[in-house]
Amino acid sequence: MLGMAAPNLRTTLPNPRQFLRFAGIPTFCRFPQIQSVPPQQQPIDWAIYGVPFDGGVTYRPGARFGPRAIRTESQYIKPIHLEHNVNLAEVFSLADAGDAPIKPFDSKENIDSVVEFAQSIGDPRHTRLLAVGGDHTTAYANIRATWQRRGAPKGGLALLHIDAHMDIVDVIAGSKWSHGSVFRRAAEDGLIDVRRMLSIGLRGPLNSTDDLDFARQRGVEIITCAEAQTGAARQRITNFLKRLGDQEVYLTFDIDSIDPAYAPGTGTPTCGGLTSAQAFELLRQFAGVNLVGADVVEVLPDRDVTGITALVASHIIFEILALSAVRTRSRPPS
Amino acid sequence: MLGMAAPNLRTTLPNPRQFLRFAGIPTFCRFPQIQSVPPQQQPIDWAIYGVPFDGGVTYRPGARFGPRAIRTESQYIKPIHLEHNVNLAEVFSLADAGDAPIKPFDSKENIDSVVEFAQSIGDPRHTRLLAVGGDHTTAYANIRATWQRRGAPKGGLALLHIDAHMDIVDVIAGSKWSHGSVFRRAAEDGLIDVRRMLSIGLRGPLNSTDDLDFARQRGVEIITCAEAQTGAARQRITNFLKRLGDQEVYLTFDIDSIDPAYAPGTGTPTCGGLTSAQAFELLRQFAGVNLVGADVVEVLPDRDVTGITALVASHIIFEILALSAVRTRSRPPS
Amino acid sequence: MLGMAAPNLRTTLPNPRQFLRFAGIPTFCRFPQIQSVPPQQQPIDWAIYGVPFDGGVTYRPGARFGPRAIRTESQYIKPIHLEHNVNLAEVFSLADAGDAPIKPFDSKENIDSVVEFAQSIGDPRHTRLLAVGGDHTTAYANIRATWQRRGAPKGGLALLHIDAHMDIVDVIAGSKWSHGSVFRRAAEDGLIDVRRMLSIGLRGPLNSTDDLDFARQRGVEIITCAEAQTGAARQRITNFLKRLGDQEVYLTFDIDSIDPAYAPGTGTPTCGGLTSAQAFELLRQFAGVNLVGADVVEVLPDRDVTGITALVASHIIFEILALSAVRTRSRPPS
Amino acid sequence: MLGMAAPNLRTTLPNPRQFLRFAGIPTFCRFPQIQSVPPQQQPIDWAIYGVPFDGGVTYRPGARFGPRAIRTESQYIKPIHLEHNVNLAEVFSLADAGDAPIKPFDSKENIDSVVEFAQSIGDPRHTRLLAVGGDHTTAYANIRATWQRRGAPKGGLALLHIDAHMDIVDVIAGSKWSHGSVFRRAAEDGLIDVRRMLSIGLRGPLNSTDDLDFARQRGVEIITCAEAQTGAARQRITNFLKRLGDQEVYLTFDIDSIDPAYAPGTGTPTCGGLTSAQAFELLRQFAGVNLVGADVVEVLPDRDVTGITALVASHIIFEILALSAVRTRSRPPS
Amino acid sequence: MLGMAAPNLRTTLPNPRQFLRFAGIPTFCRFPQIQSVPPQQQPIDWAIYGVPFDGGVTYRPGARFGPRAIRTESQYIKPIHLEHNVNLAEVFSLADAGDAPIKPFDSKENIDSVVEFAQSIGDPRHTRLLAVGGDHTTAYANIRATWQRRGAPKGGLALLHIDAHMDIVDVIAGSKWSHGSVFRRAAEDGLIDVRRMLSIGLRGPLNSTDDLDFARQRGVEIITCAEAQTGAARQRITNFLKRLGDQEVYLTFDIDSIDPAYAPGTGTPTCGGLTSAQAFELLRQFAGVNLVGADVVEVLPDRDVTGITALVASHIIFEILALSAVRTRSRPPS
Amino acid sequence: MLGMAAPNLRTTLPNPRQFLRFAGIPTFCRFPQIQSVPPQQQPIDWAIYGVPFDGGVTYRPGARFGPRAIRTESQYIKPIHLEHNVNLAEVFSLADAGDAPIKPFDSKENIDSVVEFAQSIGDPRHTRLLAVGGDHTTAYANIRATWQRRGAPKGGLALLHIDAHMDIVDVIAGSKWSHGSVFRRAAEDGLIDVRRMLSIGLRGPLNSTDDLDFARQRGVEIITCAEAQTGAARQRITNFLKRLGDQEVYLTFDIDSIDPAYAPGTGTPTCGGLTSAQAFELLRQFAGVNLVGADVVEVLPDRDVTGITALVASHIIFEILALSAVRTRSRPPS
Repeated sequence: MLGMAAPNLRTTLPNPRQFLRFAGIPTFCRFPQIQSVPPQQQPIDWAIYGVPFDGGVTYRPGARFGPRAIRTESQYIKPIHLEHNVNLAEVFSLADAGDAPIKPFDSKENIDSVVEFAQSIGDPRHTRLLAVGGDHTTAYANIRATWQRRGAPKGGLALLHIDAHMDIVDVIAGSKWSHGSVFRRAAEDGLIDVRRMLSIGLRGPLNSTDDLDFARQRGVEIITCAEAQTGAARQRITNFLKRLGDQEVYLTFDIDSIDPAYAPGTGTPTCGGLTSAQAFELLRQFAGVNLVGADVVEVLPDRDVTGITALVASHIIFEILALSAVRTRSRPPS
Repeated sequence: MLGMAAPNLRTTLPNPRQFLRFAGIPTFCRFPQIQSVPPQQQPIDWAIYGVPFDGGVTYRPGARFGPRAIRTESQYIKPIHLEHNVNLAEVFSLADAGDAPIKPFDSKENIDSVVEFAQSIGDPRHTRLLAVGGDHTTAYANIRATWQRRGAPKGGLALLHIDAHMDIVDVIAGSKWSHGSVFRRAAEDGLIDVRRMLSIGLRGPLNSTDDLDFARQRGVEIITCAEAQTGAARQRITNFLKRLGDQEVYLTFDIDSIDPAYAPGTGTPTCGGLTSAQAFELLRQFAGVNLVGADVVEVLPDRDVTGITALVASHIIFEILALSAVRTRSRPPS
Repeated sequence: MLGMAAPNLRTTLPNPRQFLRFAGIPTFCRFPQIQSVPPQQQPIDWAIYGVPFDGGVTYRPGARFGPRAIRTESQYIKPIHLEHNVNLAEVFSLADAGDAPIKPFDSKENIDSVVEFAQSIGDPRHTRLLAVGGDHTTAYANIRATWQRRGAPKGGLALLHIDAHMDIVDVIAGSKWSHGSVFRRAAEDGLIDVRRMLSIGLRGPLNSTDDLDFARQRGVEIITCAEAQTGAARQRITNFLKRLGDQEVYLTFDIDSIDPAYAPGTGTPTCGGLTSAQAFELLRQFAGVNLVGADVVEVLPDRDVTGITALVASHIIFEILALSAVRTRSRPPS
Repeated sequence: MLGMAAPNLRTTLPNPRQFLRFAGIPTFCRFPQIQSVPPQQQPIDWAIYGVPFDGGVTYRPGARFGPRAIRTESQYIKPIHLEHNVNLAEVFSLADAGDAPIKPFDSKENIDSVVEFAQSIGDPRHTRLLAVGGDHTTAYANIRATWQRRGAPKGGLALLHIDAHMDIVDVIAGSKWSHGSVFRRAAEDGLIDVRRMLSIGLRGPLNSTDDLDFARQRGVEIITCAEAQTGAARQRITNFLKRLGDQEVYLTFDIDSIDPAYAPGTGTPTCGGLTSAQAFELLRQFAGVNLVGADVVEVLPDRDVTGITALVASHIIFEILALSAVRTRSRPPS
Repeated sequence: MLGMAAPNLRTTLPNPRQFLRFAGIPTFCRFPQIQSVPPQQQPIDWAIYGVPFDGGVTYRPGARFGPRAIRTESQYIKPIHLEHNVNLAEVFSLADAGDAPIKPFDSKENIDSVVEFAQSIGDPRHTRLLAVGGDHTTAYANIRATWQRRGAPKGGLALLHIDAHMDIVDVIAGSKWSHGSVFRRAAEDGLIDVRRMLSIGLRGPLNSTDDLDFARQRGVEIITCAEAQTGAARQRITNFLKRLGDQEVYLTFDIDSIDPAYAPGTGTPTCGGLTSAQAFELLRQFAGVNLVGADVVEVLPDRDVTGITALVASHIIFEILALSAVRTRSRPPS
Repeated sequence: MLGMAAPNLRTTLPNPRQFLRFAGIPTFCRFPQIQSVPPQQQPIDWAIYGVPFDGGVTYRPGARFGPRAIRTESQYIKPIHLEHNVNLAEVFSLADAGDAPIKPFDSKENIDSVVEFAQSIGDPRHTRLLAVGGDHTTAYANIRATWQRRGAPKGGLALLHIDAHMDIVDVIAGSKWSHGSVFRRAAEDGLIDVRRMLSIGLRGPLNSTDDLDFARQRGVEIITCAEAQTGAARQRITNFLKRLGDQEVYLTFDIDSIDPAYAPGTGTPTCGGLTSAQAFELLRQFAGVNLVGADVVEVLPDRDVTGITALVASHIIFEILALSAVRTRSRPPS
């Protein structure tokens, strides 16, 4: 038997004694491919899938190779989270659902294809989806799929948004569907609740402040990266979480929130960002939120010469799943 | 005076004594920016412009950064061609016309924008255009612009096509305007004369032979890369040139015709290709053709770690202009 | 339906309209994973598997990541061979059998583990094995497995060996099982017939000529790389093939037979090697041999900065399968 | 119209709707080339020029390619500074003045050439100069030019010096004009006032402490990098600024003050340096100083594999101009 | 005379006026090769030697090239430590003792070879050894050699262990001698005193907590990386040092304790690590300990594209020697 | 005993059983450092030394790191030449003489320093010198040293010059001592005999043909690269060698004679060059010449991402020494 699953494990991981981390066809975090999850591990709690699309970028393309690179570097991920003291494979049934079918030449058409694929994954009432980009249009697609799976809640999902940019511009280069407009569209379409949106990490030179003003006026809570790097942010996050209570939350993580020193492989790198330690510590503050979907986007392998961007993205996936596992450990998933 | 132009030079090049090749804002081959060409050097004979677009690719994107990389590496180019014994700057007034305005999210829309820009360059009845990609959709745009500038000749232009692929597929991933369909479209639109089309360099695994059959049935002359690397090809080229006579010719050069060892920076690299010496020797066989337009495409800098792809692309531009200069030397350009 | 298999196809390949080459969990040449080959495509004709082991190297390690890199770059491979005019997917049922379980700390122990795994693949009387290294000890393991599957023929298999080195040293750094001794061991163990062994590609500085003398005295046919790059080699190959007749042949291809310009990602690169065009042309001379097993080894991704080594290795796999397909087309596989 | 300049803008920037950041011949921060600044935007407030010289280095050369790389990566820079809440293009007329003519074989001769070129830029009584290196000898040249343009003030300019090294050695390898001696020379020549010199960032192993002692004895205020990374430095900076008052200040920024993780592309990288966030925060403390000239030096592209060093250098240029803009906003430039 | 040794220097360093840092055959930190240390500089106080072995790794190999890369990058190291205000070359006679003879195919056999070589270096009663890996099995070998040279003290040496992993697993992939088991073996063999072991830097996903529990139960003091990045760790270190008193201490530094942004070139990179500034500050807290041996391990040059990992490793060597020099300055070495 | 020298060996090489190629402080081709050559191996026949200088370059600097990189990659070199069937270590006493002291800021001053150093190596009447650059000014220095050691022959040495450029320009950027003028200076100073100069490899765009005309008029035999790649060159070389007879010859090899695909790491790469196989075959035609000195120059490691340039340079050193060994084998060296 290649895999190993002690009676108390919900996920079968390859036996590291036989299949070392450099061996085997790589799946996200070494989770099983979805078609080989045995019945006793059904229904799947979290499924990860890839969205190899970068037709929505305004600067450097190549994030279409992100899922593949993250699968490779995530071989290093193991199931136990030291700080949260939780074993993902005990708490969750986890799977890699493969990549969505891509329409490479049109963002909107591609989003529709991704949503359709996402709806077919696992048990739509139970299985939660973590999408791995691809560019940030991935988030719109996975938010739409998640929102539908959660019963299309009026008012939309709450949103944790970690990113160097607001991505809330109306139109860029004639398009309403580039990676810079995803949260404008999600808000317009009622998928997210902007008054329950916390955006962390904004920094760098701007073309205009219109979008920032737009967000602030509608009630988005904004913590700039400079603010996030001081102690003061912690209280604002606590307040936001209090306000949030047990509401269903979607988390979107743009890898460019992390500094280019730690994550050079991304399309619009911006200096002065988070260290990976700061990013992990930030995420750990969200332990206990009612997470119903997530994404990690904008990893661009061609600029990731030593693989450290895909590696930190793998850690972010692990941190996100651990946030959810902490909650599930004490109560059954909704 | 920074520039230098002896009385007998048609192009002002920067004085290499003051502006060494690592200095200055780089233009193609150190040619002047078009707005600074003095009246006595008008009209411009050949203008080079960039098409930083890669929205038509089916595999690896990034060729949008091709023009910038080629401008940088082409600083090494100098005006005299040793084998043809011709000085480009004596024969031609040459200029860098900048980059076309790009519509990044739609190939067809982008082609229209490029054509419109191309039509505005220099003297449309005199100035010939060499477009630097970007992906191979660049060729369609520059062929259309050239065809219009040459009076929209019925039957279309003759075509020299050097490439590892035929790029003559009807539809790819739902699109008629990807980089794999450009010559199908150009033929349909009457811009090129497929019976005066010579395609050199085809190689590598194929999905189907339909496209190859399509081309052969319509009279395209095909010399595979394996054939081109033997002596036998030389006779077939001579025959084609005889058949061609003085007809107006467009030359399109896909950098992937050259082997990945020499040109790793491209989106669909295919092994077993031409060496750069073979590519130069091949081009030199076309000395004397009536060249009215050209392009060099598919340079992808993110995979061009040491810059040698952009460098060889610069040499190819130089070889193409030299082909034309050899002809012009003995007779005035039409 | 994601996959596509016309009635006349023996292998189901992903539909390139839905799953572009940058999408999906990569398998060798996009072949199906062995567990998902449907009954009507059984038995499998050729199975490819990985051997992510490099504990036998004497210089630069890292080839353990070879199978993973080749899976990724081989996404570019398509089923039709232009020069042989054969469609692999029509002729063969093909599959990716995953990676062998590795014993990373001991070459001999690892070989035993690989052989045991190899024996379990497909139908042992029918399915032929192409192993992808990993270091050259992979060859010993796959030769042993192949020899056993072919009924342990007395006298051993004939061997086509393409390599910059003889790999026939008795002991290196105290070990009889490093990558430099594999053919010495295979000969001693009766797995190969040294009088039916053709070794092509030897070049570069040597420590001693003992091994060369050993090989020559026992009847190995040696064509050095310098010889192979002249026309004279062709006749010697023809003579060898005549002598070989229909005997069962194993082909081992060390990527370092190709020049470091074309294949920088290998552990003992040696200058003055074959171009990839020369390597393909060389292999094509073997069309028609009775190939019963093969390997492609010594790809070291950490030195393969632009991926061209893994890419050319993918082409070599394709060329090897095509050699076999040419034969099968006219007669059923034995 | 390609450019866009609303009535209240002093600088015409390319329209990002037509010229995306990957298009066009790159100038520093997309500022116009100086010859194309229209009369109504004259006189230019700040001009940036390149000094592609590295003949003064004592370790790793290649900074001659710094200006070119920074022009490329600075395409990402936009005009609005979030933390200072200021729009550079509203406050200033900005231009790229090209590169100085270089004397590649002699530091002193080159400095003279650079100074002569610098004096010719814009309106010498109004236009301030930001020089982009090249090695740190760039600073001497630009300080001399600035000092002359400010009326050759007796006592010299005040100096903000951010660097991992003091660059105040008398003679290195027989030369008084290497990049390690620039501030010694500037002090001797009366261009800077060492009692109004603040040097921040010193760190790493030393050959001798003579230079440090020399600086301290003459009144240079030194904050080591280790000190700068604690809160204590803030008070010392405040005291220095109080002492400085409204005196004219020159700012020199050696990219090696930033840690090699953030800025690997430099000639004498030293570990334990500033993060880019720390560097930005440090610079922001100088808002309001009377800045009359500046430089950013020692970017070495060949070691800047992912471009992050040139990117952070672009951000530093942006931060420096913003410092000046904050002051100008409330009062007219002197 | 190429070297320079003022009367008060114990180590002859190359004259930087004649032999610039880019010249000469590189030794560790430019220290003399051991065979050329003159009698008046005998006995040597600290000798550095390389262990180019990586046969003990469980993930990415290549650390066998670590000593060579560190020799190259350490050319930048100079003798004076700014913060400790100590000149290594005044306090110590220092030498590069070359590389140990390697047994590449067996960890245990290699350890024996390294120990035998280490015992032959300098004056065993006086000369202390700093080993440069190679993988972490280097530590076991150098601890054993040091322990023997210190008289095989019952109870073993105290241990400062800085690392992202505990390396205290019993058996991995069937081996007791991989890099993940070195401190388990050292404890079993009585070479180290686990109750005097301080382990700093643990982080990242885990396979199991057994090893952590094992260590804690036996009295190992563990400060996780997250803890080390807060102020609280300082007090725990002070307490440990108080408990330690003047006991003989061995320090082992795994470069992966530093974050991949700062040290990408390592075999099992883990995100969220120390910055190099944090690592230096951490080490400086140990000034005054009675250091009798040390190692710096796991530098993997093939993943260290810009050389910053080998550079920071050089700084770590410098910091370690400086720790010892601070103590020696005030009292003679034991 | 680490080294091994059978009674019939003139050079002691490290025992590859104990010191594998990845171990030890690297010297050129693993030859002993000159100070450790035992008396019975004196006098040394050929000494290799490094010239880490690049102050003479007109384009991309960095060749100062060439000697270090070549030492590292040349660890792969072994003593026996397969095609010439000669063992260098049997025929010659060989040594690495270290690097010359460098004057980094002035070409002429540096040349004088190198010549002085070269004169001190080995036995000036016997030991021949192979200099490893550094830039091509290295050749002038080593030619001068060789010419003096050979008794300052009137008329100068014959010269075999393999290079993509003539390097015979009078003045560049105001300097008579850049790398582009070395053979002009050597001819003027009577060190070489231009009528006994064969220059092979010229190619690429030119600024002027004056230098070419200058050379031709004075009797230099020029074989362009395009000519060298056809069979016709062989006869011209034979004729030159006949004309040369037994005259003393110096060989200078600029790595840029080889194509950038094979040698990307150089300062003025030019496309269309020799393959490494062609370069070796070319050199082998010179077997038997009376070689009295040589150099290999212009290796620039920062552009040599995978090390293949330094590797091919190592092979070139090996080929040059083998040329000389072939002659020495049959007669004693003069």
